[in-house]
Amino acid sequence: MSWFKNLTRFTPPVKHKFTHTNNTHPLFSFQHFSTTTPPVENAASGLGPTKKPDKPRIVVLGSGWAGCRLMKGIDTSLYDVVCVSPRNHMVFTPLLASTCVGTLEFRSVAEPIGRIQPAISTEPGSYFFLANCKKLDVNNHEVHCQAITDGIHTLKPWDFKISYDKLIIASGAEASTFGIKGVKEHAIFLREVHHAQEIRRKLLLNLMLSDVPGISDEEKRRLLHCVVVGGGPTGVEFSGELSDFIMKDVRQRYSHVKDYIHVTLIEANDILSSFDDRLRVYATNQLTKSGVRLVRGTVKDVQPKKIVLSDGTDVPYGLLVWSTGVGPSSFIKEMDLPKAPGGRIGIDEWLRVPSAPDVFAIGDCSGYLESTGKPTLPALAQVAEREGKYLAELLNKVGKAGGGYANSSGDMELGAPFVYKHLGSMATVGSYKALVDLRQSKEAKGLSIAGFASWFIWRSAYLTRVVSWRNRFYVAINWLTTFVFGRDISRI
Amino acid sequence: MSWFKNLTRFTPPVKHKFTHTNNTHPLFSFQHFSTTTPPVENAASGLGPTKKPDKPRIVVLGSGWAGCRLMKGIDTSLYDVVCVSPRNHMVFTPLLASTCVGTLEFRSVAEPIGRIQPAISTEPGSYFFLANCKKLDVNNHEVHCQAITDGIHTLKPWDFKISYDKLIIASGAEASTFGIKGVKEHAIFLREVHHAQEIRRKLLLNLMLSDVPGISDEEKRRLLHCVVVGGGPTGVEFSGELSDFIMKDVRQRYSHVKDYIHVTLIEANDILSSFDDRLRVYATNQLTKSGVRLVRGTVKDVQPKKIVLSDGTDVPYGLLVWSTGVGPSSFIKEMDLPKAPGGRIGIDEWLRVPSAPDVFAIGDCSGYLESTGKPTLPALAQVAEREGKYLAELLNKVGKAGGGYANSSGDMELGAPFVYKHLGSMATVGSYKALVDLRQSKEAKGLSIAGFASWFIWRSAYLTRVVSWRNRFYVAINWLTTFVFGRDISRI
Repeated sequence: MSWFKNLTRFTPPVKHKFTHTNNTHPLFSFQHFSTTTPPVENAASGLGPTKKPDKPRIVVLGSGWAGCRLMKGIDTSLYDVVCVSPRNHMVFTPLLASTCVGTLEFRSVAEPIGRIQPAISTEPGSYFFLANCKKLDVNNHEVHCQAITDGIHTLKPWDFKISYDKLIIASGAEASTFGIKGVKEHAIFLREVHHAQEIRRKLLLNLMLSDVPGISDEEKRRLLHCVVVGGGPTGVEFSGELSDFIMKDVRQRYSHVKDYIHVTLIEANDILSSFDDRLRVYATNQLTKSGVRLVRGTVKDVQPKKIVLSDGTDVPYGLLVWSTGVGPSSFIKEMDLPKAPGGRIGIDEWLRVPSAPDVFAIGDCSGYLESTGKPTLPALAQVAEREGKYLAELLNKVGKAGGGYANSSGDMELGAPFVYKHLGSMATVGSYKALVDLRQSKEAKGLSIAGFASWFIWRSAYLTRVVSWRNRFYVAINWLTTFVFGRDISRI
Repeated sequence: MSWFKNLTRFTPPVKHKFTHTNNTHPLFSFQHFSTTTPPVENAASGLGPTKKPDKPRIVVLGSGWAGCRLMKGIDTSLYDVVCVSPRNHMVFTPLLASTCVGTLEFRSVAEPIGRIQPAISTEPGSYFFLANCKKLDVNNHEVHCQAITDGIHTLKPWDFKISYDKLIIASGAEASTFGIKGVKEHAIFLREVHHAQEIRRKLLLNLMLSDVPGISDEEKRRLLHCVVVGGGPTGVEFSGELSDFIMKDVRQRYSHVKDYIHVTLIEANDILSSFDDRLRVYATNQLTKSGVRLVRGTVKDVQPKKIVLSDGTDVPYGLLVWSTGVGPSSFIKEMDLPKAPGGRIGIDEWLRVPSAPDVFAIGDCSGYLESTGKPTLPALAQVAEREGKYLAELLNKVGKAGGGYANSSGDMELGAPFVYKHLGSMATVGSYKALVDLRQSKEAKGLSIAGFASWFIWRSAYLTRVVSWRNRFYVAINWLTTFVFGRDISRI
C-alpha cells in the first residue's frame, strides 16, 4: 500500500504543479507488478478448520431459495456464514417471466446476498465467494472450489479449499433437455436473470428486424413466432405475459408488424397438470382467448430456425423458450453420496445426508431417501424456502447447545423432523387474470379460484414475499409505470 | 396467415381433446419453410422514391441527441420519418456515468425512439430500421443500408436501399483512441448503455474476486485499481460516482476489501479544461478529498492487466475506463463529401451539406465549412440538441411551403441561419457536489458556482431535461431509493 499513501497529492491546476510521473514516483512500485508476482498466493490456500474462540463455520453451496432462506435465518452470533455460488444474488423466480417483456425490470427481481444476510458483507469470518464447488471431501470436512473469473487473459480461475463445520448443499437443479439435440444451443431457458435478458433482447431484435425492408413475408412470420415448450406454471405465465405484451404494447408500438406475431405453447401432456381441473379449463380458455395457440406435441430436434416434432412436423420459430422442468445437475450426479429416487442427494427427515457427518442438503438438489418412506417433494420455491427456514432453526438450536463445530453434534436431540405442508399454487395467465389453487394436494378438497380476484391475490402475495423493502418498492413502482406508460421497449 | 387462422382451437384439458399435430394439421404449412423460401425477397428491395399524394420522406441516420431532437420536432402531418440506427433508443448521456455504480438504473437513461416520435410506431410510412448506413448515393437521393441481425446462423444481414426527400446525417462520432494499441481491446468507453453495463459487471466481478481466498495481495490491489483516462466531464463525473460508491457502499457491503480499492484519473493536460479556473481548483480538491488520485500522464500502450505511460511507468489496473473525447467515425471519414477542419462533414450556416442537395448534417459528425468563417462547435449534447431543434423547424417551414419533396426547395428562403449560444457547463464531482459554469465562453465573464447548491441545480436541470415523464419519474425514484437503501450490487 505504500506506493499509494505516498502518492504526491495533486495540486490545483491553476498553479500548474501537476504530479509528474517519473522514475522516483511512488506509482513506480507498480512496475513489473504483473510479471513478478503470481496472482495466486498458494494453490492450496483457502479457509482452514475453525478453532475456538472463532465461531464455527457454516458453508452454503448455492444462492437460490433454499440457500438464501437458510442464510437469512442463521444466527450470526453463533456461526460464521460462507456462501459459495456462481451468482451473488437470489432471483425471485416467480416474477422472472414478467421481466422478459418489460412489465418488471430485471433488478426488481434480484436481491444481493449481502442484503439477505448482512453478516456476509461485514463480519470478518463471513464471506461470499464467486466460485463453483468442484468436489466434496466429507472425510476432511472440506469443499474444493474454483473461482469464477472473466477469462484467462486477465485472471486464470484458481482453486481453493474451505473447511466446514456444517455444510449445506443447496445448489439447485438443472433445466431438463431430455437429451434432445440443439436445446442448449438454440433454446433459452427461463431460470436466471440473464435468460430473461436474452429473451427480451431477442424478442425486441426480432420485432425490429421484421420491419426492415426486404424481408420476406414468411421469414417475418418465422421471426415473430414465439414458441414456448412446456406447459407448467413458468411456460404458462411466460405465454400469458407475452400475449399481454403483444395485445397492449406491440399493437401500439410496432403497428407495422402486429399481425405477424404469434405465440404457440407446446406441451406433451396437459398444461398446469398440478392444478385443479376447473382452473386448467379456465387457463386454457383464457390463453386461447389471448391468442396463445396450445399444441400437444413432443419435440424431437431443435435447429437454429425450427423445431421438429416427433411426428415430423416442422415448426419454424424466431424465439424458443424451454421450460420443461428440472432434473439433477451434473455436479449432483457425479457426487459420491447416496441418492434419492430420481437422482437427487438422499436426505433423512432432518435434511441430513446420513453417510456424511455435518452435511445437509436442501432445495431442488435433495430428496428423501427411500428408507424414509416419504415421497420426493416437488421442485418448488416454497419447498426450498421452507426447508431453508427449518434448517436454519435446527442449526441455531444445535449451535446454542454447543454442537456448532465439526463432529460435535453426534448424539444431540434434533427435535421434530421437517414436515412439508403445501400452501397452494398460483399462476397468472395474462390479461389481469390468475389461478389460485389452495388445495394441499391434487386429490384434496379446498378452495380454487380464477380470474381478476386471484390475479389480485397473486400480485399481493408475491409482493409480500419479495425479500426486501427496496425490491418490494421497485416491483410496485414497476407495476404502476407499466400500467400508466406501458412496457419499456428499448433494447439495451 | 392461413395456417394460423385455421389452427384447430385447443379444447379444455379435462375432456382430453388436445390438438394433435399430424400431417393434415395446418401448422404443417411451416414445413420446409426455411429451406424453400429465401429470407430476403429481393436484394435490391427497400423504400422507393415518394410520389404525391404520399408525404415526402425524411431519412435520419442516427439516434443520438441531434437525430432524436430533430425527429421529435418534425411535423409528421408534413413528412414521413424514417430512422436508420444501430440502436432503437436514445441515451441520456449526462447521466450514463451514474448507472455504472447503480445510482441510476440503465433503463432510466434510455428512451425508445418510438416514444420520442410516436409516428415511427404508428404511421404507415414512418419506420425505425435497425441497420447501419453503408453508403450515400447523393445523385440518386438514396442511402444504402445493411440490417443488423444476431448472426449468420439464424439470419444473414441483408442490404436494402431507402430513397430520401431530405437526408439528415446525425450519426455522431467515435471515441478517440489516438491510435494507442490495446485501447479498443482492453479499455471500456462510456458512451452507450452496454458500456455502462460492462463497467458495472467488471467492477462487481473484481470486488468479488478480490475476496476469494488464495488471491495475492498485489493482485487484489490490481483488481481493485480503477483507472480512468481522460479528465473531461465524463471522466471526472465517473471518478466522482466511483468514489461515492466506494465511500458509501463498498465500505459497508464489501468491508473485507474496502482498503484495497482506489481510483486514479490520468489526464495529459488539465482536468475540466473548459471550466472556470476557480471551479477546476474546487473539482481538484473535491476529487482528491474523495480519494481520487489525479495523475498527469500520457498513455503509450494498453495491455490486458496494465497500461504503460509514455515515461515508461507501468500502471496495473483491474478496470480501465477510456474517456478522452471523440473524433470522426470511419463512416464519416470514408464519405465522399467536403469536410470541415478536423474531418467532420462540412456544413453551411443552415446545417446543409452544400454539394449534396437535400442533405443536412447535425451533431458531432458535422462542423462548419472553413468558408463560413465559423469555428467548429464542441462535441456536446447541447450543441447537437440545439441543431436538431433548429433543423426540425427549418424542415417544417420548408415542408409547409411545399418544398418537402426531393429537389423542390432549390431557391426557397430558409430564414435565419443557425446560431449557437452556449448555456453553460455542468459536472458533478461526487459527494453531493457539482460545478455549474454559466459563462458563455472560456474568456467571458459570468456566474460560476460549486458545491451542494450547484449539485442541486445539476440534478434538477438534468431531471427536467430527461426526455419523457416516464424516465423522469424513474430517475427521481432511482435517486430516492439510492438515498434510502444504498446502491444495488447484484451482478446480473
